[in-house]
Amino acid sequence: MTSDHPLCQPSARSDVPPFMVMDVMTAAARLEQAGRHVIHMEVGQPEAPAPATALAAARAALGGSGAALGYTESLGIPSLRRRIARHYEETYGLAVDPATVLVTTGSSGAFVLAFLALLEPGDRVALTAPAYPPYRHILTALGCEPVLIRTGPETRWALTPEALLAAHRETPLKAVLIASPANPTGTMMTEEALTRLVRTAEDAGIAVISDEIYHGLDYAFPATTARAVSGDTVVINSFSKYFCMTGWRVGWIVAPERLVRPMERLHQNLAISVPTLSQIAAEAAFEGRAELEAVKAGYARNRDILMKGLPACGLDRFLPVDGAFYLYADVSGFTPDSHAFARALLEEAGVAVTPGLDFDPVAGHRFVRFSYARAEADMVMAVDRIGRWLKGMG
Amino acid sequence: MTSDHPLCQPSARSDVPPFMVMDVMTAAARLEQAGRHVIHMEVGQPEAPAPATALAAARAALGGSGAALGYTESLGIPSLRRRIARHYEETYGLAVDPATVLVTTGSSGAFVLAFLALLEPGDRVALTAPAYPPYRHILTALGCEPVLIRTGPETRWALTPEALLAAHRETPLKAVLIASPANPTGTMMTEEALTRLVRTAEDAGIAVISDEIYHGLDYAFPATTARAVSGDTVVINSFSKYFCMTGWRVGWIVAPERLVRPMERLHQNLAISVPTLSQIAAEAAFEGRAELEAVKAGYARNRDILMKGLPACGLDRFLPVDGAFYLYADVSGFTPDSHAFARALLEEAGVAVTPGLDFDPVAGHRFVRFSYARAEADMVMAVDRIGRWLKGMG
Repeated sequence: MTSDHPLCQPSARSDVPPFMVMDVMTAAARLEQAGRHVIHMEVGQPEAPAPATALAAARAALGGSGAALGYTESLGIPSLRRRIARHYEETYGLAVDPATVLVTTGSSGAFVLAFLALLEPGDRVALTAPAYPPYRHILTALGCEPVLIRTGPETRWALTPEALLAAHRETPLKAVLIASPANPTGTMMTEEALTRLVRTAEDAGIAVISDEIYHGLDYAFPATTARAVSGDTVVINSFSKYFCMTGWRVGWIVAPERLVRPMERLHQNLAISVPTLSQIAAEAAFEGRAELEAVKAGYARNRDILMKGLPACGLDRFLPVDGAFYLYADVSGFTPDSHAFARALLEEAGVAVTPGLDFDPVAGHRFVRFSYARAEADMVMAVDRIGRWLKGMG
Repeated sequence: MTSDHPLCQPSARSDVPPFMVMDVMTAAARLEQAGRHVIHMEVGQPEAPAPATALAAARAALGGSGAALGYTESLGIPSLRRRIARHYEETYGLAVDPATVLVTTGSSGAFVLAFLALLEPGDRVALTAPAYPPYRHILTALGCEPVLIRTGPETRWALTPEALLAAHRETPLKAVLIASPANPTGTMMTEEALTRLVRTAEDAGIAVISDEIYHGLDYAFPATTARAVSGDTVVINSFSKYFCMTGWRVGWIVAPERLVRPMERLHQNLAISVPTLSQIAAEAAFEGRAELEAVKAGYARNRDILMKGLPACGLDRFLPVDGAFYLYADVSGFTPDSHAFARALLEEAGVAVTPGLDFDPVAGHRFVRFSYARAEADMVMAVDRIGRWLKGMG
């Protein structure tokens, strides 16, 4: 029997693609170890640390010998849940009941929890193409079917009610996952577009999951929370981006009330609770607004540098650079293979970017994603390197 | 359509039972808020904080303003993976390749990852009854079928090769999950029993997952790692118990090599990486052995107090108290309903314990679990309170 059934073979559902940006990071690290200088525009994380208020709260929690830092309530530390609720009042003028806020281990933990709580195996979930790769990989690992809907320049790369309903008529959708500002494109939906999409989806019986991880990082116009449109949406957010706390792994969900107890039971079993120190630091991060706004002002300057600098290099086909810290550029005028383009740009010019195939298995070979979350001087240097490298190609 | 398909109804797979011990904690907290004194023997977590070496490493990582604490490699910080591998050499005299060590968000994260990587929906996994409740609840949430196998005093409450094969003959098992020391029983498998079970399982084509979270906390005899029996086992461990770091949420997997890359891809998508500060602290925790051994010596004294004190109260039917920090007592001489017994013990005597139904849906109504991870003075007081309360009952 042993030879017919070799032990510990990987399951079919484990056969998800890697998150390629992690592999680009590895290649960049290898070059650096070999003494090369690399400008990191591949990774979607702030260079800035957590705000001083968060670091101070973490230090205080570590002080004294009595710091047991045990499990917290599975839903999260109550004062953090209240603080997150208050954030909706402050930011959007929206009342949110703290009882509907769940603290999660990053937005990653929030997606696993939301998908398990809401979706049966086999359920179909609409996503845009391009989108954050783990959306579709988590869904397939959990037995659900991602339905990729192409977006294009005629709708500012936003999913439209018409495209959603067309997909729904083909085979019914259980849910739709939207993001504004979006990764990898950096585009945003206007308030009107978001409102129409959420209303259309819910009227058709399609649940809306809104990934709002890039809220706070909006340059073109203020981002709208889907929660303001409907209390039936599942909103996911995180301290990783605006709050500069990627490695702390804290996020949250605002859920319709009927999903809170199922999510709590799943969380008790799947995670027990979120790292305690990270929760304490996250609560204090809300008081670091001045510092965080200064970081955001830096992104805005970086954005200007790229929006002026890249076209001057000949890279002039990119999507609206509305929010987050991404610029998604069409490089098909230079190459039929953006993966090879990204590899050459890294090896020959020392600029690490992420090829679009990570985000869009169909049209991604035409695009690369630039992240502008690093220092301003890096952006200037990057434009210079890219310009000279592209001139050398031409 | 809306009324027929109300939005955001919980999925069938979210219908897992709560982890009841969390509800006992809530009831105990309510009594304390009302001014009552409660001795906490319900929760399976050390009262001691992380060792000073871990706290110092965390403080150092927070020092300076440049502490970005970003994502780490998805498999974990390389030096931590190497340190965990060295732990196997130091503890068991066993060579482990750091490349086969994956850092996870607690053992909770490890179970989700191991189950997804190894199991297809519908796969049957043998567990003992009683066992740690999330085993079966995570399995069912991921579409697998837990197969509970009763254990009894005749085998020191260990799963036997014969019982495993009998279940396998009925309908084939894909895997078996074992734990020694075990939760909630505190019992351990002898080296011979563990070796026979692992060999029998693997010869029959059943993959072995060994939960070794209570290793280091052995009083009766030293615990054996399943990895020493076979390199095909998936070993799961954590910094929560021996290392006193529950709220830090760091665990690990030692996996057969062919599962490492599938697990890495899943982890990149489902979690990105484990909290950075927790990984840094965990690595330093290995240097806190003197402190951790002192904590363990305290558990050993607590164990003696209960093993002498509880029989003197009339509570003399319990399982071998070999390891972990649990004593699993048969209270069926006092009550047909250990849930009601636990509630009364909490409300009338101020001692919080966990009813056995959390761990064993069939026979758990006869048992309660006492955790002895708290201070020695609490144990003395608990025996006194329980003795007087049982006398009042009789």
